[in-house]
Amino acid sequence: MQNRRDWLRSSLGIGGLLLAPSNLLTAQEKTDFNPRPLEPVIRLSSNENPYGPSKRVQERIKNSFVHGCRYPYAYSDDLESILAKKHGVSPESIIVTGGSTEGLKIAGLTFASNGGEIISGQPTFLAMMNYAKQWGATVNWVPVGADKGYDLDEIEKRISTKTKLVFLCNPNNPTGTLVPAKKLVDFCNVASQKTIVFSDEAYYDFIETPNYPSMVEAVKRGDNIIVSKTFSKVYGMAGLRIGYLIAKPELAAQIRKNIVAMSNVLAVEAAKEALQDDAFYRFSLAKNKEAKKNIYTLLDHLDLNYVPSHTNFVFFHSKKDIRELGPKMLEKGVRIGRPFPPFYDWCRISTGTLDEVDAFIKGMLEVYEG
Amino acid sequence: MQNRRDWLRSSLGIGGLLLAPSNLLTAQEKTDFNPRPLEPVIRLSSNENPYGPSKRVQERIKNSFVHGCRYPYAYSDDLESILAKKHGVSPESIIVTGGSTEGLKIAGLTFASNGGEIISGQPTFLAMMNYAKQWGATVNWVPVGADKGYDLDEIEKRISTKTKLVFLCNPNNPTGTLVPAKKLVDFCNVASQKTIVFSDEAYYDFIETPNYPSMVEAVKRGDNIIVSKTFSKVYGMAGLRIGYLIAKPELAAQIRKNIVAMSNVLAVEAAKEALQDDAFYRFSLAKNKEAKKNIYTLLDHLDLNYVPSHTNFVFFHSKKDIRELGPKMLEKGVRIGRPFPPFYDWCRISTGTLDEVDAFIKGMLEVYEG
Repeated sequence: MQNRRDWLRSSLGIGGLLLAPSNLLTAQEKTDFNPRPLEPVIRLSSNENPYGPSKRVQERIKNSFVHGCRYPYAYSDDLESILAKKHGVSPESIIVTGGSTEGLKIAGLTFASNGGEIISGQPTFLAMMNYAKQWGATVNWVPVGADKGYDLDEIEKRISTKTKLVFLCNPNNPTGTLVPAKKLVDFCNVASQKTIVFSDEAYYDFIETPNYPSMVEAVKRGDNIIVSKTFSKVYGMAGLRIGYLIAKPELAAQIRKNIVAMSNVLAVEAAKEALQDDAFYRFSLAKNKEAKKNIYTLLDHLDLNYVPSHTNFVFFHSKKDIRELGPKMLEKGVRIGRPFPPFYDWCRISTGTLDEVDAFIKGMLEVYEG
Repeated sequence: MQNRRDWLRSSLGIGGLLLAPSNLLTAQEKTDFNPRPLEPVIRLSSNENPYGPSKRVQERIKNSFVHGCRYPYAYSDDLESILAKKHGVSPESIIVTGGSTEGLKIAGLTFASNGGEIISGQPTFLAMMNYAKQWGATVNWVPVGADKGYDLDEIEKRISTKTKLVFLCNPNNPTGTLVPAKKLVDFCNVASQKTIVFSDEAYYDFIETPNYPSMVEAVKRGDNIIVSKTFSKVYGMAGLRIGYLIAKPELAAQIRKNIVAMSNVLAVEAAKEALQDDAFYRFSLAKNKEAKKNIYTLLDHLDLNYVPSHTNFVFFHSKKDIRELGPKMLEKGVRIGRPFPPFYDWCRISTGTLDEVDAFIKGMLEVYEG
């Protein structure tokens, strides 16, 4: 470690690249946000946010131990009311779930099992489609366009009476793309009159386009739209497993009865605190931006194309088969994203702490130039 | 509170009853197990264990905050290996779930959806049957016998080609009964050759019969048996939502792919610690016994029949309609169990701390003698 740290002190960063230095945390930030030591294998493979859970959230969890013996219903109801206020909907419109993944899977099961069709972009986040397929759903895959973004025109064309759900991950995982705002709004207006549109907004907080609309606005208008949100990303709470769905009460009621796990008391209390911890929220976003900037600097230097990202990861043209690059980078101590067919020569790299991103950069320079 | 506390100092307990005194905790126990102050409404309604999570478990959670940003898969795999060793099965036989409730619901969905039949005693714990009914399962209810226990002879008679699952909660919630050991073993031998037997062992730790067999032994022999276990009861971790299923690998594989939430990192780490915390385990069992003894003393005094309990609750003949007794006891500051049809003049009371049980006793004396 010492070796690398010395290297970082150079104003030229790693391999002569001008990087946002990893020692830029102020003393105050170091106290507040507790950056952690590097792990033996650095995980930049799952779009986690290694700065969380925040100190305030940790304190809240400690103060909630006394409730750890209680079933979560009352705690969860209270969080649903808080989230309802935040989004300007009724509590009946909020369903707290065990990570947003439970919401995606159960929505797929509820609306598309036994022969229903889901239309989805490809590649995208697969939890809903993989689960629904196990229950007899069919999936109508629409390849992403040349820009690696959802092809909404083609999706709209394919909607038929068989279609029970359209799944949008926006910004999209693994490509990091964002549908243009007007395109999204127009699509949702039209599509939600024919079927249910599911808008996975896990990465919404990272969007770099100002005033980009959330589809919660369409839920408020009573459209057939379900929005999923999560505390796994900007709040850094993936391990706590808490997310939620937002839908009009009639739709929400159909899903709510099918939820199997909900969340847990510590995560529910953590979520309440996270919603109030503006300093950590802003810190997360700022550090994510710095990390992405350093990744871009590397990719520009290596002349590897990438998709401008609205998320906490970057999808780039590795020009090497990801099934070979993965093991090579693991030898360098960094776990990168899995293959995302059909893009076998593309790589998804999650932002980590700046130290972790430095390790990625160093490994990449060794693999590509070493 | 002061009033009641003074009262408790009397060697005659409450209303002249000889009770295990609530101030019997040693100084060491008070430090170790952190008995908590009474809450405004005392919850003796959900079979929770208010002594948990233990101090050791709390420390483990604090030390796991750094992992709170990580998805739980690797942590959960590790716990599955630990549980496999504990039970003498392969890790493929263990499925960690979001409370055992997720295991019950998903097993019901997996094996009985779309027209399958579940045979179950009545009353019993309803999570599996209620969920499976939503997915097209039918339930063949077999009333409990005169002893309020499962009628295994009748259940065996009703098994047909339609039967996909037999659900046993043993010891049974809400009646607290335990099937005689030989009866259980014989039943499982025969029934598991015709269908899958699901044995919910949430209350197994509280069984008062020495050397009572766990159906994990039948799983090890390769029988068609699924066992569920939970950290919600003796470990006092209901709010953390973690339980697990044990089944032979072929059966486990069918369920595992249908799990939607699993558990969470803090609960997984908490579970690992709880398994090692023998002192708290023994403390939980001892305090539960004292609480039950005090409840029995009250019921004997009031001449109300009860079922000898192998759990952390007591099912007693209230001789008053539970739909009236519930609100009356709530006025006394104690939430008792909900109605369990068809036994509307019976009540399920969970054990709490001895202080909490004192409040129940005082309230009952006021209602029945006041």
